Amino acid sequence: MTTQTGSPLRGLARYVPVLDWGRRYDKDALTSDLVAAVIVTIMLIPQSLAYALLAGLPPEVGIYASIAPIILYAIFGTSRALAVGPVAVVSLMTAAAVGRIAETGSPEYIAAALTLAFLSGVFLMALGVLRLGFLANFLSHPVIAGFITASGIIIAASQLKHILGVKASGHNLYELVMSLAEHVGSTNLITLAIGASSAAFLFWVRKGLKPLLVKLGLKPRLADIVAKAGPVFAVAVTTLLAWGLDLGSKGVALVGDVPQGLPPLTMPSFSLDMWTSLIGSAVLISIIGFVESVSVAQTLAARKRQRITPDQELIGLGAANIGAAFTGGYPVTGGFARSVVNFDAGAETPAAGAYTAVGLAIGSLTLTPLIAYLPVSTLAATIIVAVLSLVDLSILNKTWGYSRADFIAVLVTILATLALGVEIGVTAGVVISILIHLYESSRPHVAEVGQVPGTEHYRNVLRHKVITHDDILTMRVDESLYFANARFLEDYIYDAVAKRPKLKHVILMCPAVNAIDMSALESLEAINERLKSSGVTFHLSEVKGPVMDRLLKSHFLDELTGQVFLSQHQATSQLSMGTAG
Amino acid sequence: MTTQTGSPLRGLARYVPVLDWGRRYDKDALTSDLVAAVIVTIMLIPQSLAYALLAGLPPEVGIYASIAPIILYAIFGTSRALAVGPVAVVSLMTAAAVGRIAETGSPEYIAAALTLAFLSGVFLMALGVLRLGFLANFLSHPVIAGFITASGIIIAASQLKHILGVKASGHNLYELVMSLAEHVGSTNLITLAIGASSAAFLFWVRKGLKPLLVKLGLKPRLADIVAKAGPVFAVAVTTLLAWGLDLGSKGVALVGDVPQGLPPLTMPSFSLDMWTSLIGSAVLISIIGFVESVSVAQTLAARKRQRITPDQELIGLGAANIGAAFTGGYPVTGGFARSVVNFDAGAETPAAGAYTAVGLAIGSLTLTPLIAYLPVSTLAATIIVAVLSLVDLSILNKTWGYSRADFIAVLVTILATLALGVEIGVTAGVVISILIHLYESSRPHVAEVGQVPGTEHYRNVLRHKVITHDDILTMRVDESLYFANARFLEDYIYDAVAKRPKLKHVILMCPAVNAIDMSALESLEAINERLKSSGVTFHLSEVKGPVMDRLLKSHFLDELTGQVFLSQHQATSQLSMGTAG
Repeated sequence: MTTQTGSPLRGLARYVPVLDWGRRYDKDALTSDLVAAVIVTIMLIPQSLAYALLAGLPPEVGIYASIAPIILYAIFGTSRALAVGPVAVVSLMTAAAVGRIAETGSPEYIAAALTLAFLSGVFLMALGVLRLGFLANFLSHPVIAGFITASGIIIAASQLKHILGVKASGHNLYELVMSLAEHVGSTNLITLAIGASSAAFLFWVRKGLKPLLVKLGLKPRLADIVAKAGPVFAVAVTTLLAWGLDLGSKGVALVGDVPQGLPPLTMPSFSLDMWTSLIGSAVLISIIGFVESVSVAQTLAARKRQRITPDQELIGLGAANIGAAFTGGYPVTGGFARSVVNFDAGAETPAAGAYTAVGLAIGSLTLTPLIAYLPVSTLAATIIVAVLSLVDLSILNKTWGYSRADFIAVLVTILATLALGVEIGVTAGVVISILIHLYESSRPHVAEVGQVPGTEHYRNVLRHKVITHDDILTMRVDESLYFANARFLEDYIYDAVAKRPKLKHVILMCPAVNAIDMSALESLEAINERLKSSGVTFHLSEVKGPVMDRLLKSHFLDELTGQVFLSQHQATSQLSMGTAG
Repeated sequence: MTTQTGSPLRGLARYVPVLDWGRRYDKDALTSDLVAAVIVTIMLIPQSLAYALLAGLPPEVGIYASIAPIILYAIFGTSRALAVGPVAVVSLMTAAAVGRIAETGSPEYIAAALTLAFLSGVFLMALGVLRLGFLANFLSHPVIAGFITASGIIIAASQLKHILGVKASGHNLYELVMSLAEHVGSTNLITLAIGASSAAFLFWVRKGLKPLLVKLGLKPRLADIVAKAGPVFAVAVTTLLAWGLDLGSKGVALVGDVPQGLPPLTMPSFSLDMWTSLIGSAVLISIIGFVESVSVAQTLAARKRQRITPDQELIGLGAANIGAAFTGGYPVTGGFARSVVNFDAGAETPAAGAYTAVGLAIGSLTLTPLIAYLPVSTLAATIIVAVLSLVDLSILNKTWGYSRADFIAVLVTILATLALGVEIGVTAGVVISILIHLYESSRPHVAEVGQVPGTEHYRNVLRHKVITHDDILTMRVDESLYFANARFLEDYIYDAVAKRPKLKHVILMCPAVNAIDMSALESLEAINERLKSSGVTFHLSEVKGPVMDRLLKSHFLDELTGQVFLSQHQATSQLSMGTAG
């Protein structure tokens, strides 16, 4: 992906990928990109309005959040097909964060959303510049899957009030359900009819429209794209109905007047108080957004044998969010649905994103008067149908069969997200998976080993028929030795030695010991001392190169009562000969 | 250590070790224990007063905190020689925690200290009953060493005001030094003379008295014990001086009236507010106290080939702290100095502790009127001399030479403790060592390996002269595969494959892979898919038993394009034959 640009540009191109692909941009790429842009624009308009609604923001904010960010990502990002803008989970997290410090609909609420985007952008960019993208790896796959599933359930539940046309609120499932139950009596039946039929139509579009179109002669890929535009039909039809039947006067909530024009120039707040109350949420939103975006980008890049650069992706997403903060938006990231449509529609370069931005700007200038009659329940239906595809409880099943530790991490993530909200949910997921990992490595698998007769192989005495000696105990520890398991190893060896009165030699077999930290070194020193005072010699065998290099820097090898053997066989033969002689 | 008690008692004896050793208690043990108790009592009186002062509590609280806890530990603890009571670091942590919510000297301050002991006791006991003692292992040895050193420096600095006879305060080094600098002008010279000469005397006692006594014909062990009683001489002499010369009227701070009598019956607070503000500190104090206590207990037990049971130690310390809360004390733990003296003085069983408690109770009943004239600066001098022996910066040197990761953890712990106080310091130490561990295991050592000519051994191509094949790439990863390094592995393999156009087989050699979690399994599936689409077959070799058991539960092996080979040699021979044929 690096090119023959002159040396001053080459350095810059590392941080500004557009300087690389932009030089080779041709007419074919332009055509593909333009086609993709038209399709994505049509799909994005209702989606952007809907996600703004989910975030508790005015609908036009969703459109604004799709314009500048998409252009900035095109300049700084490395994925060819990623489409950046509002997405469901980040919108929900925005609502949770901003709702804590401001009233929905107030100017402070909008200002807080801008500030959240700004902080998130700065954080992402800092991670990118400092090459700290690896931090996102601490979100394990199952935790992410659980979190997305639980968020999908909460999002769907949060939209039910719009389908029923009632007021209800809450940031977790319990609050939402209780609040809905309280207000369900005042359901507006026309609103419900519009919402329910839109949802039914959209579900059918997802499952039934593509096969129908294929049967009618469309190519599968095109059928797929047309089917993805389903929400546009629902929006158009229900808007016309609301206008024609004057549903607004019958208690149906409509989107209402939306300012017509390009994204405004806005400023995030620079109040330290607001920063303090939003920074934690900004970090969580950044990391979740980054993980979601990178996994979409990687999936799409892999299909074309391209690579993305995670650290550069951080810079691209950081720039996009900072852009959102200054153009009336809110936190954005690379969305799954829009990116897949962009990819399938044939986008060749990030320029497709820039053309989409132009399309949205035109839409924002021309279409907004029509949106006034759009029923809110139609948007809620598009959200519900979109997020229910994210809900996938099979991760519980998969992890249960494979690894109880992962199962517990997923279960905790899902339950914490549902019961306590998105921020606590994802934090709990990260913390629990780190704790489980530490717990497991703090009680490593230790096997007493013996020689497989007639070979030089040494295996677990419990799994194999092997030769052992009364005066030699060999233990193989299957884990790096570090602070969390140092004491465990000490205890294990002391217990084992206490049971064997005839013992003269203890050999610690280290083929799976990839590191020995200072705590473990001190434990080895303590073991050596303790065994020495009992008249038992302490040896090591099969110590790896890097570990041995490290041990040579300490005094441990000088004090070691026994030897370090290159192979376990050498150790056993030499020591058993010694005792025989 | 288990005995022939009848079955109902046997179960109970697990939780109440006194039922075990108590049955075999004889006259010899009684004599040894009594002698040890007298010696320890003499040493403990000034020490307990001094540590109460350090904690910001009235001096008698230090004595109270040594009576009930020592008896309760004797009943529930497993160490034969551990002496439980106030210790320096825990006293400092108590001052930091309680000082945040109450004014020093106020009744609320004393109530908060009782509550802290109660919460700490309940937490320790809960950990013990739930067998969660392993949690203490997350404090790495270097972090503990750094923390104790930094605490020693802060404690010494905090006592300088008493030596100078000025008012000063602060919970970190900077605050303390600034506050001292501000008040140094009002130094009381008599106070300074007493404090400085006491300190000088005590330093001399430490270094010079024992050799002198030995030269005078005392046995080294006895000389050692007499030297440890040095503070008693300093206390007696300066108290007499203060009384005889009426130093109180000359501005020298004296301990003043101390209530005469047995420990009072007290109640911790059950206010939820106070619990909320103290629970974090209680957890930190418990863990630090437990780690300190267990390491002392283990050291002493090892000298007599005894074992302690860490989970039961939690119960013993928990009981001791709950006891402190109800008898006018404050948080306690097993102290190093007092335990060593107890051990050296010949204590045979925990009963020695009980006799010490009786000694202290007698002291509390009879000696308190004399203590009124004891200069505070003498106590400050005993604290300074005691804690400076804890200060050991050599850990920085040791870790620098052995492991940069440990060095950073120690440095962060020391600096954070000095600059931000004990609670942030120890928390920072734990967090940074976990983060460093995760960071290191998130970028595992991966080596491309080849065959050592004429052998069946496969080694790193960069370290050894080995045979490789153009169409086979073998990579050995020296770490368990889990969420933090799953993506790293993917990236590594894709990069390696991209550089080798002739490649047909990739073998992942797993002798050091001790576990594969769900995230890593999904990465392996992704690698398999991606290689498949490039026409490259993916194999594993030398997969460990437990890991293979786990993989068999997933669908990965069904989808794997290649095979799982028992040995790397088998893999290479078979695959290179295949391509040759």
